[in-house]
Amino acid sequence: MDEDSFKSVCIVGVGLIGGSLGLALKKARLCEHIIGLGRRRESLLKALVKGAIDEFTLSPREAFSKADLIILATPPSTIPTFFPLIAREAKEGCLVTDVGSVKRRIIEESEKILPSHIIFVGGHPLAGMEKRGVEWAEADLFLNSIYVLTPCSRSTEEGMEKMKRLVYSIGAHPLIMDADRHDLLLAYTSHFPHLIAFALSLLLGRMREKEEKVSYLAASGFKTMTRIAGSPADMWEEIFKENKDNLLVVWKDWEEVMEEMKRRLGEGNLRDTLEKAREERERLDEIDLQKGKGI
Amino acid sequence: MDEDSFKSVCIVGVGLIGGSLGLALKKARLCEHIIGLGRRRESLLKALVKGAIDEFTLSPREAFSKADLIILATPPSTIPTFFPLIAREAKEGCLVTDVGSVKRRIIEESEKILPSHIIFVGGHPLAGMEKRGVEWAEADLFLNSIYVLTPCSRSTEEGMEKMKRLVYSIGAHPLIMDADRHDLLLAYTSHFPHLIAFALSLLLGRMREKEEKVSYLAASGFKTMTRIAGSPADMWEEIFKENKDNLLVVWKDWEEVMEEMKRRLGEGNLRDTLEKAREERERLDEIDLQKGKGI
Repeated sequence: MDEDSFKSVCIVGVGLIGGSLGLALKKARLCEHIIGLGRRRESLLKALVKGAIDEFTLSPREAFSKADLIILATPPSTIPTFFPLIAREAKEGCLVTDVGSVKRRIIEESEKILPSHIIFVGGHPLAGMEKRGVEWAEADLFLNSIYVLTPCSRSTEEGMEKMKRLVYSIGAHPLIMDADRHDLLLAYTSHFPHLIAFALSLLLGRMREKEEKVSYLAASGFKTMTRIAGSPADMWEEIFKENKDNLLVVWKDWEEVMEEMKRRLGEGNLRDTLEKAREERERLDEIDLQKGKGI
Repeated sequence: MDEDSFKSVCIVGVGLIGGSLGLALKKARLCEHIIGLGRRRESLLKALVKGAIDEFTLSPREAFSKADLIILATPPSTIPTFFPLIAREAKEGCLVTDVGSVKRRIIEESEKILPSHIIFVGGHPLAGMEKRGVEWAEADLFLNSIYVLTPCSRSTEEGMEKMKRLVYSIGAHPLIMDADRHDLLLAYTSHFPHLIAFALSLLLGRMREKEEKVSYLAASGFKTMTRIAGSPADMWEEIFKENKDNLLVVWKDWEEVMEEMKRRLGEGNLRDTLEKAREERERLDEIDLQKGKGI
């Protein structure tokens, strides 16, 4: 253990992300002891067996009072509900972070509720999958992925440095960005595309009611595009609700793109548009995070 | 070689699909000899080296006059351009098929141009990828995939039986469907989703012009959804043009789905809709073609 490591870490919510963070922190030897906090004994036991945590408790008080680092990895809407107890119980200088995919309200609440002796840095690891639960957790989930850090008035310089080191140590790349910016950009790159995947799946459903055979014609392209529509509906409803305003901004942009495509289809003049789209997509594959020093 | 096999097969266009069909027919021992026909010597040579064809020619006359089976595997819009020469040169009883992803015009032209002593059965193997070219061809490309057969007035019962046996022999599942139905259903399951993938890629491009960092936030979900936007733009422009009327039908349906989602997002009442979408998507994974006797 070097001086950057945490003596006692508390992970609240040991699902896919919380569990993977536990495994990754241990692999990086960044902590001495991890306590898991949750509501369901069963998940906590699974996390313990898997080695993602060293012990668990159902008592937030016990968990918060000992921790040097608290990671909130529960569904986004529940994250601020832990702030009052953290405010009361956590040690002076305790570093608190979260993994919520919509940051604005979390940041606002942290600034409202947490006292100045608690350090808060918002976080969002861009890793995950359609699955949920600690059974899918793995230490390498964050390898070469982006981990957004959203600073606020509760983030000290030292807190930011500690979080950056944590991110690097689990193989991810920190990207520092304020909460509003994060929420808008994520609406473009993740939330709206997820909504589209759900919509494509519904579109197929409409046709299937008229013609059962249509399902057989949904080949790999369709399956790939709707894969993320297999994600948990409750989780995504929450994200869509939390980031509704930004979703509507993107939606307007989207309608313009679609109008343009429809016009060009009518004119028989789609080639340049498709070529531009293809180039934009290729650009994504060229982003090499391992060389991405300047991000 | 059994009695179902073809003595001489001509494959026109030895790209990903044409080349894979050559390899698959050979693996299934369904033909004695394959002649490749094309415009570019280089692709034909590659196909020869790969073993997808046994010889090649740049002369359609030579290729067509010997064949018992002609497979047209060129871009959809060029397929009917071969019919006049096939009408003049092909042997009596020659079986002709194609692999075009939009069938209506091909079927219409075949009925107009081909004489009654030539048998034509439209075909569309639902296999492929973003890549093109014979270098990506493989004998197992069609394994457990759907292969649509579209009959017309030029398809005899014997022709249909031969094509069905061909499809089974390369490990695929024949699905018989008239051209109009095929084109509408494919607009739902493939053409419109491809258009959406291109549009999502353009949407990201609009944001990237304002904020370069947005590309870093396009993680696996976005990449998966837009993967097919890496497909050749010229090929897709052609498909969109050929199937424009059906695309516009789907588009209308799509707009209703999106309006419904927007309304429910506004009402904070998305859960059932997302759950329905998730179930629809799961249904696709449950389709087990290996058990799919009755399709």
